[in-house]
Amino acid sequence: MTLPQTPLLDRVAGPADLRHLPDRDLAALADELRDEVISAVSETGGHLGSSLGVVELTVAIHAVFNTPMDKLVWDVGHQCYPHKILTGRRDRIRTLRQKDGLSGFTKRAESEHDPFGAAHSSTSISAALGFAVGRDMGQPTGDAIAVIGDGAISAGMAYEALNNAGHEGRRLFVILNDNEMSIAPPVGAMSRYLSRLYANEPLARMRSLAEGFEAALPAPMREGARRARQLVTGVTGQGTLFEELGFEYVGPIDGHDMSQLLPVLRAARARATGPVLIHCCTVKGKGYAPAESAADKYHGVAKFDVATGTQAKSTPAAPSYTGVFGDALTQAAARDPKIVAVTAAMPGGTGVDRMAKRFPGRVFDVGIAEQHAVTFAAGMAASGLRPFCAIYSTFLQRGYDQVVHDVALQGLPVRFAIDRAGLVGADGATHAGAFDIGYLGALPGMTLMAAADEAELVHMVATAAAFDEGPIAFRYPRGAGVGVAMPEAGQPLEIGRGRVLREGTDAAIFSYGAHLSEALRAAEVLDRDGISVTVADARFAKPLDEALLLRLARNHGALITLEQGAMGGFGAFVMHALARHGAFDRGLAIRNVGLPDRYIDQARPEDMYAAAGMSAADIASAVRDALGRGEAVAPGVVPFPAVR
Amino acid sequence: MTLPQTPLLDRVAGPADLRHLPDRDLAALADELRDEVISAVSETGGHLGSSLGVVELTVAIHAVFNTPMDKLVWDVGHQCYPHKILTGRRDRIRTLRQKDGLSGFTKRAESEHDPFGAAHSSTSISAALGFAVGRDMGQPTGDAIAVIGDGAISAGMAYEALNNAGHEGRRLFVILNDNEMSIAPPVGAMSRYLSRLYANEPLARMRSLAEGFEAALPAPMREGARRARQLVTGVTGQGTLFEELGFEYVGPIDGHDMSQLLPVLRAARARATGPVLIHCCTVKGKGYAPAESAADKYHGVAKFDVATGTQAKSTPAAPSYTGVFGDALTQAAARDPKIVAVTAAMPGGTGVDRMAKRFPGRVFDVGIAEQHAVTFAAGMAASGLRPFCAIYSTFLQRGYDQVVHDVALQGLPVRFAIDRAGLVGADGATHAGAFDIGYLGALPGMTLMAAADEAELVHMVATAAAFDEGPIAFRYPRGAGVGVAMPEAGQPLEIGRGRVLREGTDAAIFSYGAHLSEALRAAEVLDRDGISVTVADARFAKPLDEALLLRLARNHGALITLEQGAMGGFGAFVMHALARHGAFDRGLAIRNVGLPDRYIDQARPEDMYAAAGMSAADIASAVRDALGRGEAVAPGVVPFPAVR
Repeated sequence: MTLPQTPLLDRVAGPADLRHLPDRDLAALADELRDEVISAVSETGGHLGSSLGVVELTVAIHAVFNTPMDKLVWDVGHQCYPHKILTGRRDRIRTLRQKDGLSGFTKRAESEHDPFGAAHSSTSISAALGFAVGRDMGQPTGDAIAVIGDGAISAGMAYEALNNAGHEGRRLFVILNDNEMSIAPPVGAMSRYLSRLYANEPLARMRSLAEGFEAALPAPMREGARRARQLVTGVTGQGTLFEELGFEYVGPIDGHDMSQLLPVLRAARARATGPVLIHCCTVKGKGYAPAESAADKYHGVAKFDVATGTQAKSTPAAPSYTGVFGDALTQAAARDPKIVAVTAAMPGGTGVDRMAKRFPGRVFDVGIAEQHAVTFAAGMAASGLRPFCAIYSTFLQRGYDQVVHDVALQGLPVRFAIDRAGLVGADGATHAGAFDIGYLGALPGMTLMAAADEAELVHMVATAAAFDEGPIAFRYPRGAGVGVAMPEAGQPLEIGRGRVLREGTDAAIFSYGAHLSEALRAAEVLDRDGISVTVADARFAKPLDEALLLRLARNHGALITLEQGAMGGFGAFVMHALARHGAFDRGLAIRNVGLPDRYIDQARPEDMYAAAGMSAADIASAVRDALGRGEAVAPGVVPFPAVR
Repeated sequence: MTLPQTPLLDRVAGPADLRHLPDRDLAALADELRDEVISAVSETGGHLGSSLGVVELTVAIHAVFNTPMDKLVWDVGHQCYPHKILTGRRDRIRTLRQKDGLSGFTKRAESEHDPFGAAHSSTSISAALGFAVGRDMGQPTGDAIAVIGDGAISAGMAYEALNNAGHEGRRLFVILNDNEMSIAPPVGAMSRYLSRLYANEPLARMRSLAEGFEAALPAPMREGARRARQLVTGVTGQGTLFEELGFEYVGPIDGHDMSQLLPVLRAARARATGPVLIHCCTVKGKGYAPAESAADKYHGVAKFDVATGTQAKSTPAAPSYTGVFGDALTQAAARDPKIVAVTAAMPGGTGVDRMAKRFPGRVFDVGIAEQHAVTFAAGMAASGLRPFCAIYSTFLQRGYDQVVHDVALQGLPVRFAIDRAGLVGADGATHAGAFDIGYLGALPGMTLMAAADEAELVHMVATAAAFDEGPIAFRYPRGAGVGVAMPEAGQPLEIGRGRVLREGTDAAIFSYGAHLSEALRAAEVLDRDGISVTVADARFAKPLDEALLLRLARNHGALITLEQGAMGGFGAFVMHALARHGAFDRGLAIRNVGLPDRYIDQARPEDMYAAAGMSAADIASAVRDALGRGEAVAPGVVPFPAVR
């Protein structure tokens, strides 16, 4: 592999070095930076398209503003690779998204130039406004700058923040990085509105600046800017939507043209007294032909060959859970015209794009809008439709109140398809699907399933499709299935009924979800040591199969609960049931194996689960400990004497 | 008490009866309906101001649209009293918000005219869009109408729904009930924008209609309407913010003038092909002088005297938790200039208005915007400030992902003051603070406290103020404290340390939060039966006082966990710890007392807790059961034999 020639970049140790370079060198530096990003991501994989789209913007911001005193907040943070390279992390950029490497997102622990970490969308304006208040109250903080994409600014949270920032009137910079492309093609009326804003004039002439800034421009640009602005916004005195919300609006400008970026940012920095929105138009994947010409603009890529753009193909042993869900949903939709699907800007990520290909009118992409997605699905359910609401575990947190208040409390049959349950690999702790079992299982009337493998997932889609009695959810992990034989068609499961995979006599493992394979592995290990283990798959965390649970508890010397989730979930529900039945009264050696009470950084999923203490060996240890055949107990744990 | 004379209303059995009345009778009917609402709420208490503001609108909607075939969705639902009277519930209207009575909100189980229940804000457009899709897909549904206030439409969720509805382009009616007043005075740039929309012209002349509808008007009105519209929106061809989002915009109109309401609604119903927003200006508390002249427009009232407006004063035996929090916060803020507070449109409800009186620049009301509120607080914490984020338990669900992703994962010291924890009385199941212990306790790095009484709350405010190591939350119930002696000033508690209130020998009750008083009552009851009970207050659900817990488990024949929260919370965390320590291995009779796995309808809080099986007698029964001295076990529970 040949590394790119980067003579200017090689002299940049930190953002302060940019502030001494002449403008023409900044443009050349951006070119080198782009080459470096392409080279690095070709080795690591990652969010390439977004990062390539903001190369010039990153250089311009760092040349004009003064981080870390100024607080630069990248929304989502997946476009931060050029920023990381410029802020002292170039030497580690080829460890991106890997175990012990740089995070694929901004992260406070990583650099003082990351004042606020991200990964979920649309948080940057809220955080930046927080910094602006801190500055105004005497904290050691300079300017606050949020950089947010057009997809992210369409979310309700961003609107709440704009609304509040406009009201507060504090000096604050919001840079709208408008590439007409978040992950999927853009949806929503706001997106159309933004398109209209710059469709009125060719981009090249769009040096329009809001009133206050025009005067700061060199004289020859002034009149053109005023005229362009009037063309964009209709007429003088009639503002854009952002101006209606109290922002100064500047733009649109070409986000790849340093001769536009630098004067606009400098003028804004010199003159702003309140909140300013700078509308930058960029091209996702800019400057790398294979990315620019790809449909997804290389949003997320595997390792690839720089010359050709060809991505390394992994050959999974089994179909992905996402694909299995998408196909099973499509089959169910073919049988039942009342089935509809909702996604919040993730048609491909959730697999509902497969259904959309056959039934485009029955799949709704509502944009980055999880709150609306859930209640919209609830409304459809109330009308008699059968909605599947497909949202990743970690993003469903965004719609939690709507699940509680609009779905569960009303007993409406919304089907929640919860992808990315458990640990997810390279996206790290921010994307872990750790909490859904607990936060959904606590809700009265909720039915909860988890798929132990991809065949089970097919049956759970069928179960959900057939279930009209109330809300029902099923979770499944990221990535490839385990390679089991697949059923011709899904068969509805009996609600609240688990299954026994393997019968033993000494200990029982009661597993919920995709860690079942590890449980079976642990049982084999223990078998070789002469410990005979029953392995059961609960299938349902709610309602629990209490008959099976009590049988497991009665007939074994130890009971292990197992789940890819945090405390307060399946293991907790099992113990609540056991306590209610008095099953602990005369002794029951129970241990809970699940996600530990700490965040797990990115690595391969199997490494993350090992770090979490959830490997087959860890499960076997828990069994031995419960049976009193363990090694020394963990430090700090006091051996517990009998009560009576 | 004299009941109002209501000859027209007496002849209305349901909304269909309105559709035969001449327009002049509808205006008179509205007057009678207003009198009936005032009379009923004077007996029951409730949300008077909001309901009075929509009397004419309610009559007009029911005269023009065709419920229950058409789906009318009231946002929040607290303005639905006139709607309930017109839709067959007049005979029960004087049971509002009482045990076994009508809900104070819309509720599906109550009437086919309530197609979608509510109580939390800003859900109506999402739900109505769901109905519109259902109709378009052949479900037996007519038109979908959302009625939403100006406060509620400022929330991110409503914006997400507008954005999606504008994109979908389906026929849909959104009626903006703009009274410039949600609960507190309005905040936010959107609110200012709405004010500007109708400040341009006196209300009386505001019969402006959007292009498409103007033609449907009688000829003499047509030109005036067009001119008025141009005055409001600036110029022809330049739309309002709602038009930018894809809606037809009609208005503003006078929401108390039947001669405006009826033709506009009829024209809209006759002509609409896509989404329409009808901007109605109303006056909160309209038509009842004491309400109109009150600062809060009688948003929520106790029983009152109709002639004078004087509300029945309850004389609480102890200060309210909310007031105690507000005062303790103000004292802490006086000592520490870095303390700031955030509320989401509830300055009075949360008590931060007390701090705002002394330190107005340090209290931020962000509007109905819980997602932004949490991340804004996180940003302030990252800048070095010490934010208290005061949000009711049930509304914090709206900001759950932000608590996870922006606060907990980054370890930022945001202080969450969680009012209305547990059951809340007249507001019923939708406002129950049932889930926060579980959904917060599952998060690594979170510190969780619950106040057993109002003095404890003072100490917990001091603890949170002094705690910079990460996020910390403290929960406390609605209503009056228990009347304990109050400390001069709060003292920071030792983190993760509980306390023993009473020492016994037979059983231990490990209580978390405000149900401690019931635990002590249960202990007294048991004492009389010769059962000696230890009562301990955990104070912290996280980190747990494991030393105290293990001592309780070791030294007693039974252990009861007690909390005003759902499964998967404190009791679950206790059992996880016990399992980890092997404390169940040789027998531990544990029982969990907490909210049951069903929703509890409105009543007085003590009645709700009795219905939940959480009275002192219920706790005593749990102790007896655990000790094996109980009566017959519950039906369906199989007595559990020993394992070995």
